[in-house]
Amino acid sequence: MKSEIIAVGSEMLTPHRQDTNSLYLTEKLNEIGVTVAFKTIVGDRKRDLVGVIRNALARTDIIILMGGLGPTEDDLTREAVAETLSLKLKRDAPQVAALHARAATWRITMPENNLKQADLIEGATFLTNPNGSAPGQWLETTHSGYRKLIMLIPGPPHECRPLFDEECLPRLREIVPVRHLARRTLKAAMIPESQADKLLAPIYTTFTDVETTILAHAGDIQLTLLCSKPNKELAEQRVEELATKLEEALDDWMYSAEGESLEQIVLYYLGLRQATLAVAESCTGGMIAQRITSVPGSSRSFLGSVVVYSNEMKSAFADVPANLIERHGAVSSEVASALAEGIRKKTGATLGLGITGIAGPGGGTETKPVGRVYIAVSDDQKTDAFERNFRGDRNRVREWASQQALDLVRRKLM
Amino acid sequence: MKSEIIAVGSEMLTPHRQDTNSLYLTEKLNEIGVTVAFKTIVGDRKRDLVGVIRNALARTDIIILMGGLGPTEDDLTREAVAETLSLKLKRDAPQVAALHARAATWRITMPENNLKQADLIEGATFLTNPNGSAPGQWLETTHSGYRKLIMLIPGPPHECRPLFDEECLPRLREIVPVRHLARRTLKAAMIPESQADKLLAPIYTTFTDVETTILAHAGDIQLTLLCSKPNKELAEQRVEELATKLEEALDDWMYSAEGESLEQIVLYYLGLRQATLAVAESCTGGMIAQRITSVPGSSRSFLGSVVVYSNEMKSAFADVPANLIERHGAVSSEVASALAEGIRKKTGATLGLGITGIAGPGGGTETKPVGRVYIAVSDDQKTDAFERNFRGDRNRVREWASQQALDLVRRKLM
Repeated sequence: MKSEIIAVGSEMLTPHRQDTNSLYLTEKLNEIGVTVAFKTIVGDRKRDLVGVIRNALARTDIIILMGGLGPTEDDLTREAVAETLSLKLKRDAPQVAALHARAATWRITMPENNLKQADLIEGATFLTNPNGSAPGQWLETTHSGYRKLIMLIPGPPHECRPLFDEECLPRLREIVPVRHLARRTLKAAMIPESQADKLLAPIYTTFTDVETTILAHAGDIQLTLLCSKPNKELAEQRVEELATKLEEALDDWMYSAEGESLEQIVLYYLGLRQATLAVAESCTGGMIAQRITSVPGSSRSFLGSVVVYSNEMKSAFADVPANLIERHGAVSSEVASALAEGIRKKTGATLGLGITGIAGPGGGTETKPVGRVYIAVSDDQKTDAFERNFRGDRNRVREWASQQALDLVRRKLM
Repeated sequence: MKSEIIAVGSEMLTPHRQDTNSLYLTEKLNEIGVTVAFKTIVGDRKRDLVGVIRNALARTDIIILMGGLGPTEDDLTREAVAETLSLKLKRDAPQVAALHARAATWRITMPENNLKQADLIEGATFLTNPNGSAPGQWLETTHSGYRKLIMLIPGPPHECRPLFDEECLPRLREIVPVRHLARRTLKAAMIPESQADKLLAPIYTTFTDVETTILAHAGDIQLTLLCSKPNKELAEQRVEELATKLEEALDDWMYSAEGESLEQIVLYYLGLRQATLAVAESCTGGMIAQRITSVPGSSRSFLGSVVVYSNEMKSAFADVPANLIERHGAVSSEVASALAEGIRKKTGATLGLGITGIAGPGGGTETKPVGRVYIAVSDDQKTDAFERNFRGDRNRVREWASQQALDLVRRKLM
C-alpha cells in the first residue's frame, strides 16, 4: 500500500526548520510493508491544506497528516480534512471533559479556543495522546470508490512518535495485508557513478519486485535493495538473488555486503590480519583519523595519526628527509611514500598510510593543480604510491582523498 | 511570488535520507522576497513526477525541481517536465560536445547513456553546472494563461547550491519585485541553550520587525537576525540595533559577529598574535585538526596535530612520560597537560592544545564515566587544564569536546 506523509506548519517552510518525524514514520511504515510514495510540506493556510489533501487522496491509500492539531487559530488540519471530504466537525463531550480535567491537573485556566481540540471529524475516532493536549484522529473513509485511511497526528516529535507507535501502528497492522520486508545494503568505493550504473542497471532493472536505490557521495556508492512480499522467505530470497548478482558485477569495488562503513571494514580487516595502522596526513588534515576513530573500539587496530602540514612536521613526526621534500616538493609521490614508510617505522605499525596533496582553493600549479593527491601504503615488504586527481572544492577534495586512501588500505588488506 | 520546491529521488523517501538543499534554497529565495509555499518529495517514477509537477503548476508561480538530471535510467525530471507541458526534448549538439570534452579532460570513456544529459526541453535554456556533468535548465512558460517559471537543477548539494546562486538567482532577481533584506549572524560557544534563551528572548522578542532564529548544535549557538524593509538603510539599522543589544548580553560567550566559524576565529586570532598552534588529540581522534584545516590558508598558523590513541604514541609523539600515564591514567588532567606541553615543545608552536577523554560507548568507569574529557592549553608561561563532562553518543561527545577545546584556545588568545 502507498502512503503520503504531510507535514503541516509554516515554520517548516523557513530556512531553519525541517520535518524529521517523517523519517521515523517512514521506517515504521516500511517495516509493515507500507511504502512512502510522497512527502509534502505545507503551511498553515486552509486553502493550501485542502488542496494538498485532495492531491493525496487522488494518489495514495494512506494519508498521514502531522501537525496543525493544537488550539491556535493556525491549527487547521481538522477543519481542512473535514472540508475536503465534505464531512462535519462535531465537538465531542467526553473529550471536552478530558481537556478540562487535564487543565485542572496542571492547574491552568483553559482558554475557550482550547476546546477546538475536542472537535472530531464525522466518522473518525480519537487517538489518545498521553504527551500533549491535542488528541490524534483516525478516519477510514471512501473516496471516489476507493478505501482511504487518514490519520491526523500531532507535530511535536515527543507527541507524534509515541502516538504513532501506540495508536496508529496496531490499527494499521490489522488493515494492511501482512507483508514481510527484506533489505540489504551493499557498498562500493571509488567506482565512477556512471560506470556503476552501466554495470548495475541491466541487472537490477530485471528485478521489478525489488526496489533498488543508489546513493553516491565522494567515492562512496550505496545500493539499498528492498523487497516486500507476503512470504518472508520469498522476500529474502529475491533480495539475496539480486544481491548475489550485484556483488559479482561490483567485484572488488564492493567493500560491504551488510551496510558497514568503509572505516568499519578497514578496521575489520585489520583485526582479522592482527595488523595495525598508522597514518601521516597532510591535505586531509585529520579527516582520515577522524573517520577511523569514529568507530567504537578502533583503538585496537589504529595506533594514531600525525597531521603534518608544515615541512618541518613532516620531517620531525614522520622522518621525511628534508632534502626529499626539497627535491620533489611536499606534494609528490616520493613524499607520500616517505610519509607512509616513516609513520610505519616510527610507530611500529603493520601498515603505514601517507597522504599529501593540494586541497585548494590556493596552492595549485600548472603541473600540480588543485585536486592532485598522492597516497602511499607501506608494509614491511614494499611501499606503493598512487597519483589521483579529484574535483570540487576544498572539502570535496578532502572527502574524495580520504575515501581513496581508506580504500587503498582495504585493498592492501584483502 | 509563491514558489514550490520539489526534491526528486526515491532515496529521499527512505528512513535514512533527507532533502537539505531546500533549506539553503529557501533562505536564498526569502532574501529576494519569494516565499516557499510548498515542498514536495517524490520518487523516481515518471507518473508520480508528472502528477507532482501538474499540482505545482496549479498552485505556484515558481517551481524548482532538484535532482533526477543525471545519466541513469532513474533520472527522469527532464522527461517528466516535458511530458507535463507537452513539450519536446531535443538533444543539444553543443552540450553533447561539452560532455565529450568533459569526459576527455578526465580521461574517461563516456557511456552512451550519459548523452541524455544533453536533452533540452523545448523553449528552455541550459544552466551551467561547473561542478558536475548534468547542466540545469531554465524554462519560462505559460500554463492555463499564467506565467510560470520552472527550474531544473541537479540534486547533489555541491552542484545544486552553486548553480542556484550563480545561474538561477540573477535571473530570478530580474523577474521578482525588489526588496531589501538586512541580515546578521552572531555566534556563541559553550553557553547552555536554556540560559541563552533566558538571556536573549526578552531582548529579541521586542523587535517584532526582525526575525530572530536560534540554532544550537554541540556547544555552538547561532543567532540569525533578518529584517526585510522597502528601505535598505532602515532594515540595516534595525538589525544593527538588535545585534548590539544581543552582543552585550552574550558578552564573551560570543565569538563571531559576522557568522564566521569558531575555527576561522581561532585562526584569525592566531594570525593577529603571530602565534602558531599544535594539537595532541586522543578522544577527538583528529576532529580538531580536521576542523581547523577545513579553513583555507590554515597552514599559516596551524603546524599540525598528532592523534595519539595508544599510550606508546602519547609518549613517542608528544613526550608524555610513561610513568605519568601509569600514575594518573591516560584520561587525566595531568596527561592532558603533558600532551599540550609536549606537542608545544616538540613543534615549537606558540600554543599547545592537549585533549584526552572517554568518547564511549565503552571505556567508562565509576570515577571517569563516558563523556569525561580533559583539555589543556599551554604556552611558554603556563599550562591550564580543564575537566568537562559531555552527554550523548560517541560522535556527540567528540563534537562537544572539539568545540570546547577550540573555545578554550580562543579565550587564551583573547
